[in-house]
Amino acid sequence: MRELLGGKGANLAEMTRVLGPERVPGGFTISTEACVAYMERGEIPEGMDAQVNEAVERLERATGKRLGDAEDPLLVSVRSGARTSMPGMLDTILNLGLNDASVEGLAARTGNERFARDSHRRLVQMFGNVVRGISGERFEDAISQAKSKRGVKLDTELEAADLSALTDAFREICREETGEDFPADPRTQLEAAIRAVFDSWNGRRAVEYRRLNGIPDSWGTAVNVQRMVFGNKGDDSGSGVAFTRDEITGAPEPSGDFLLNAQGEDVVSGVRNTADLDEMGRLLPDAHDELIEALHTLERHYGDMQDVEFTVEERRLFLLQTRTAKRPAQAAVRFAVDAVAENLLGKGAALATIEAERLDALLHPTFDPQKDFDVLARGVAASPGAARGAIVFTADEAVEKGGAGEDVILVRPFTEAEDVAGFAAAKGILTSEGGKASHAALVARGMGRPCVCGAADLDIDLRGGVVHVNGHDLKEGQQIAIDGSTGAITLDDVPLIEPEITDEFRTVLEWADELRRLRVRANADNPRDAAKARAFGAEGIGLCRTEHMFFGADRDRLVKEMFLAAEEWRRAHLRDEREEEDAGAEDERKRRSAEVDERFRKALHGLRELQRGDFEGLFHEMRDLPVTIRLLDPPLHEFLPVEHFEAELEAVRERGAGEDELARAKHGLTLARELHEANPMLGTRGVRLAVLYPPIYEMQVRAIIEAAAAAGQAGEQPRVEIMLPLIAYETELERARAVVESAAADAVEAAGREVPHSIGTMLELPRACLVADRIARHADFFSFGTNDLTQTALGLSRDDVEAKFLGRYVEEGIIDRSPFETIDEPGVGELVRVGTERGRAANAELKVGICGEHGGDPDSVGFFHRAGLDYVSCSPYRVPIARVAAAQAAVAEAAAKIDS
Amino acid sequence: MRELLGGKGANLAEMTRVLGPERVPGGFTISTEACVAYMERGEIPEGMDAQVNEAVERLERATGKRLGDAEDPLLVSVRSGARTSMPGMLDTILNLGLNDASVEGLAARTGNERFARDSHRRLVQMFGNVVRGISGERFEDAISQAKSKRGVKLDTELEAADLSALTDAFREICREETGEDFPADPRTQLEAAIRAVFDSWNGRRAVEYRRLNGIPDSWGTAVNVQRMVFGNKGDDSGSGVAFTRDEITGAPEPSGDFLLNAQGEDVVSGVRNTADLDEMGRLLPDAHDELIEALHTLERHYGDMQDVEFTVEERRLFLLQTRTAKRPAQAAVRFAVDAVAENLLGKGAALATIEAERLDALLHPTFDPQKDFDVLARGVAASPGAARGAIVFTADEAVEKGGAGEDVILVRPFTEAEDVAGFAAAKGILTSEGGKASHAALVARGMGRPCVCGAADLDIDLRGGVVHVNGHDLKEGQQIAIDGSTGAITLDDVPLIEPEITDEFRTVLEWADELRRLRVRANADNPRDAAKARAFGAEGIGLCRTEHMFFGADRDRLVKEMFLAAEEWRRAHLRDEREEEDAGAEDERKRRSAEVDERFRKALHGLRELQRGDFEGLFHEMRDLPVTIRLLDPPLHEFLPVEHFEAELEAVRERGAGEDELARAKHGLTLARELHEANPMLGTRGVRLAVLYPPIYEMQVRAIIEAAAAAGQAGEQPRVEIMLPLIAYETELERARAVVESAAADAVEAAGREVPHSIGTMLELPRACLVADRIARHADFFSFGTNDLTQTALGLSRDDVEAKFLGRYVEEGIIDRSPFETIDEPGVGELVRVGTERGRAANAELKVGICGEHGGDPDSVGFFHRAGLDYVSCSPYRVPIARVAAAQAAVAEAAAKIDS
Repeated sequence: MRELLGGKGANLAEMTRVLGPERVPGGFTISTEACVAYMERGEIPEGMDAQVNEAVERLERATGKRLGDAEDPLLVSVRSGARTSMPGMLDTILNLGLNDASVEGLAARTGNERFARDSHRRLVQMFGNVVRGISGERFEDAISQAKSKRGVKLDTELEAADLSALTDAFREICREETGEDFPADPRTQLEAAIRAVFDSWNGRRAVEYRRLNGIPDSWGTAVNVQRMVFGNKGDDSGSGVAFTRDEITGAPEPSGDFLLNAQGEDVVSGVRNTADLDEMGRLLPDAHDELIEALHTLERHYGDMQDVEFTVEERRLFLLQTRTAKRPAQAAVRFAVDAVAENLLGKGAALATIEAERLDALLHPTFDPQKDFDVLARGVAASPGAARGAIVFTADEAVEKGGAGEDVILVRPFTEAEDVAGFAAAKGILTSEGGKASHAALVARGMGRPCVCGAADLDIDLRGGVVHVNGHDLKEGQQIAIDGSTGAITLDDVPLIEPEITDEFRTVLEWADELRRLRVRANADNPRDAAKARAFGAEGIGLCRTEHMFFGADRDRLVKEMFLAAEEWRRAHLRDEREEEDAGAEDERKRRSAEVDERFRKALHGLRELQRGDFEGLFHEMRDLPVTIRLLDPPLHEFLPVEHFEAELEAVRERGAGEDELARAKHGLTLARELHEANPMLGTRGVRLAVLYPPIYEMQVRAIIEAAAAAGQAGEQPRVEIMLPLIAYETELERARAVVESAAADAVEAAGREVPHSIGTMLELPRACLVADRIARHADFFSFGTNDLTQTALGLSRDDVEAKFLGRYVEEGIIDRSPFETIDEPGVGELVRVGTERGRAANAELKVGICGEHGGDPDSVGFFHRAGLDYVSCSPYRVPIARVAAAQAAVAEAAAKIDS
Repeated sequence: MRELLGGKGANLAEMTRVLGPERVPGGFTISTEACVAYMERGEIPEGMDAQVNEAVERLERATGKRLGDAEDPLLVSVRSGARTSMPGMLDTILNLGLNDASVEGLAARTGNERFARDSHRRLVQMFGNVVRGISGERFEDAISQAKSKRGVKLDTELEAADLSALTDAFREICREETGEDFPADPRTQLEAAIRAVFDSWNGRRAVEYRRLNGIPDSWGTAVNVQRMVFGNKGDDSGSGVAFTRDEITGAPEPSGDFLLNAQGEDVVSGVRNTADLDEMGRLLPDAHDELIEALHTLERHYGDMQDVEFTVEERRLFLLQTRTAKRPAQAAVRFAVDAVAENLLGKGAALATIEAERLDALLHPTFDPQKDFDVLARGVAASPGAARGAIVFTADEAVEKGGAGEDVILVRPFTEAEDVAGFAAAKGILTSEGGKASHAALVARGMGRPCVCGAADLDIDLRGGVVHVNGHDLKEGQQIAIDGSTGAITLDDVPLIEPEITDEFRTVLEWADELRRLRVRANADNPRDAAKARAFGAEGIGLCRTEHMFFGADRDRLVKEMFLAAEEWRRAHLRDEREEEDAGAEDERKRRSAEVDERFRKALHGLRELQRGDFEGLFHEMRDLPVTIRLLDPPLHEFLPVEHFEAELEAVRERGAGEDELARAKHGLTLARELHEANPMLGTRGVRLAVLYPPIYEMQVRAIIEAAAAAGQAGEQPRVEIMLPLIAYETELERARAVVESAAADAVEAAGREVPHSIGTMLELPRACLVADRIARHADFFSFGTNDLTQTALGLSRDDVEAKFLGRYVEEGIIDRSPFETIDEPGVGELVRVGTERGRAANAELKVGICGEHGGDPDSVGFFHRAGLDYVSCSPYRVPIARVAAAQAAVAEAAAKIDS
């Protein structure tokens, strides 16, 4: 039903069934199929008009009203409804059916002329804006003029005659802008509105939203035509939005915003300050009680927290829409825990209500509670988490500076759909208008960005590029901090501290651990990250990138020296085999070769000392959990950049150094140039280094074993896993394994202590996956490197193409999401499946994991579960997310089994 | 049998059965298993000694002689025997069993003391050299001293006493060099010799040979112990090698080399000038007739041309070895044709005797017969084909200069196993010593290199680096030309002309065409190559690389201009969507954008004109055969190299050009820098260009359709296949296909003429192969791009790694052959199989081919046949080879079906 009727259409039908027809305004739905057909052919599909006419007639019979009737006109709304909610992205037109004749009927019938005139004014304004594409400002300007002419401040102070005049003025604007008269015929209005909703599917805002949310372009939207009910019929009417539970905290009390004598858009826009539900109870107690009951009924029916839109028309409550409430992570966690306590849901079902990706917000920093700070101003705590950054005033600036790595806070009076890209780029969002249901709040929560809304003390002068607030003038670039959990804004330099895991979150994670089959490890290269990983529940280190231990100015020189010496060593060694020289040259060669050997040996020794210390730290931190250490992987030339040696030669020249030094600098530059590669990603890296320079891996293995022996000596039980990268041929692994085993045996003998360790390999090349059976015979474990596997399987260099054309690919609908974010199941996923099956078939003991960035992406984690992997490894901060996602995958699998 | 006994051992057993035991000296074989076990453990496997002892005893009983016997000693030879012949690569020791006691017995028994002493001398010399590893020069020096002391020139002039003294001297050399006495005990001699043969499997020469010939290191060698027979017992004895047919031309007369009163190694070494078989018939008519009969029997038995070693001992003929004759292409072709005519073989079996790779030699250039030239000297026409190049005197120089792209001729007095690498690097080989059976001749024929041997007029002074020949002094670097088909050597600048296909070759190719299922096309980018391809029997063009049409100085500027304009066009277009500017900026932007559009349009138009002409030429040349045109593929930045724009800016600055020109030059450099990619192989190329710059593919498609329409107008029937490169996602193909179809429709309309064409895609990324079913829905054909598929499946950039470590991989036995030469079946081959199966399953009409360089490699062609492809496409020169290889694959398949 959802695919055909869209989320909203299906929901309306179901809601009517659950709450009874008296609670839901009548209407009908035009299916997504019609939209898809329209998009393909560019015209309304045959037969649709007739079906719409029939449905309108049925609605007229049911309500006893007629479209355009001069006595008691039927008014309808036309709204989009995609399969998945896309709030604010698609178009809506209200009050369809009004014209100069029917507006009189509406006025007479409701005895409220002002309301009728205002409804008409609203229709022309929305239709002009949405269907005809006329700028909203033109209408707003006309309203402002009308108000100043009348000397009033609020829209509500305008009277019937003023509104009638405004309607005429609006129709004139439409004529001017489009060259056509505003359509008086309600059927023409309806047809144009339906078309506009279809068209809005391909509008820029909607496309952008889909891109950010990974929704396929091909779905299309349904259109819901529904009888209008009016919240603006006077002080016994009103509109609101409500959540079955607190939408910020998840606390088990309904929450919401309500506006008396207003239509729904007034609530969402954040233009007027809303009442809460308690206040609504004082204003309209019966409608309030009916709402609370309906909320309860809906939540129990759907088994999840709901977000509803409602209208009270002359004391009668109508529910316009209900949907699963988008909620920040803490509310999601709280709901899950409470739902189990309340026997609303079982643990698995409760876990399934959490969007794992969103838990990221719980892992965001907060202000250090130990530190006092001056609160500059306060706003609504609209999306949790604290953020610091420089003020920017536009989404474009946010994208630009945020993209360049700067921390920025997007500051706006209010936000609109076109600002969405700025949310993603900013650390936090701050607005002076709107409440918890405002656009800024909704989007920020959806994206896990801290947000403070409606900070009314802020006077934001966008033109002047300055915020006036309580005597301060804040310009663009000013550092500011906000706390989206408390609403506080400050100019003080408050430290952000790492999030603590709440009891409820802990409970959820414990359930996740009970339910999941997939183990979760972390990628960590140093004791600090290892500690964090352990704190977040990592069950080991799945990837320690030893080359990351080479960073740091003190090490850099040693590393360069080692690689230069390695290459010279290789050449000396090769020459040894090839040339037959006369005795003199032979002596000279031997002398040079001995010199090179000694330099190489010394550099290796130095690094071995450093690496041993690094590994000891890791083993100590992880205690008895497994630690997978990947031997050196990156392209050689990364360590020997030509620019460095050019600069060095320049420097040596400038300071007029001696012949020897100059010669060495020149030689370094020559080697660096010779080692430069056209495609380093496909060049001399990984295990290929071990073939060219075996002593490097030997050095690393010795350092690992020595560190583990030391840890063992200290009473710890390190679980060492040595991992060989970039294996394409089974014979590569066979050779490299022999190198590792022999170096390990030497180190064990020297340490005088057994060091249990296993030896495995990355699977990160398509060939390795295809011949996984051959490779598995030499491996104790596999770890899929899905980053490189994606690069090679798709022929895409992430660095080169992600910015350049993957974005364009998403825009053009060639792909839904970047394959570097969520695993490409049909291609890369197939290699993971094949590699796992073939590997296990050849080696039943084989342990299989994945250590690419996909290990922290919930959708990908689901895939890895289904592919039967043993574990995923991700960045420490993603570990809780992966734990929950793994449990959800297990729950979904169990559910599917019950279904089938 | 062959696997266990090795080629020689199995052959000896079979030869004994075919010719009768009186023609083959008795003996026994130690299996390859024993060698493998020895290599693994480093020691003689248990039980082997006992088995050898038993076998020796059996041999002693059969011959009635005993090892070491002082009366009538048994002497044996110990030879290697791998599964596949590796001539001269492994060790051989003769005359085992001689010591101070048995030499007397031999002398007494044969009544030939000189022979006995000489045999003893030879044993000590070979054993010292081969088993003990003592330099051959030490022994040669001692012989020279002995000769000068005696005042004689030839070895044969030394008398028994001299030889006895020499034997003592040799034993003294052994003692000096090894610190051990020469072993007198025949059993000790035998055991050491067996061990030496095992060890020789891993000797440098053998390893190098295996690498060049793609023989696995793991096979190991068998060891053949055989009763010695003696060709040096006087003028009623001799040794020789013989071919069942002429080894150069394949003409159906036996041919060979014979030396009276000599052992076999004297024949092969080329040291003494040999007699031919006719001369042998005059010297030893009975043995000659028996030999001719044996050759005939062996050829009919084996169904292939044979190469035998024989010895005549006191008029009695012994066959020591027979094997399939290595032969140059023309002999292989002649044999195949004659074998069918003689009813020796059927067409399929006859085809199977040809090594397809070797046919390359028939496609080599020859001297232009229209041109007269001065013959400097003549030698033996030892391996066909003409070659020109600069003289080099060592294999190392040949490797160095040949590797650097220079044409060189390797000039040596004679060649040895350690020179083999130089053969591969040189265009041709010229020696002053040895005949058609010499090392140089055998290896050159094996490798398809032109070779002239035994040019006795050449006095080669290696130390002085000069060849004195008929009054000329030729130094290193001197240009020279040789004709391996006639033996001519010249200093004249004789043009080389392309080979013509002989009648026999044509016959073979006709059979191949009858027998093969796989079609053969050629890769050709211009009419000249297309004409050659057609002449060589190509059934279409499988790959026209349109970017190759962009080469040439006149086009280069236009191409650069187009890509710069394309990128500016893209940016202008993007900005258009993104920014909202004030009116002034908007006007300026529009002006600039219109300017960019115009530049882009003009550049596209210019290239379209050129490309149309190119395509017309191709269509005209190929007439009604299919022509597959691949749209632009290579990385953008290849066309916009930073260096070019740096130089241009520099030039503009130097000539003090105006502001505008300077600004444009700067802008060009900026764009080029921005377009530079870290891994261009995985970057903006192929269909990705079509997404970023659709007008480029549109331009190409219009040029293709216009050219085809023009050809159609001229009454030709071009078969146009448009191919899209680097597809990873099915949606890419869907979009790009729409672009192609729409541009084609426009061009068809403009031409006013239908142009039938199909649209297909390269499969060159692993993902594409895995989702071939999805891709096949949008494709009329697939063409596997196995070069890129190898690069991505294995994560290897050919440019970066082939020289750097693939060679090392082969040396270390990690791989047998470069995956860029012969397709990697388990990995890349699996992708080809999967892609073909899945593609055909989704689209039964799908045509499937391959257009990587593997299309011309016989082993790979066999694989493509088995994988069920429709065609292969290779370089024009490889087309005949591919035709034969395809037929052989079909024959092998049919044979396997009969077997099973």
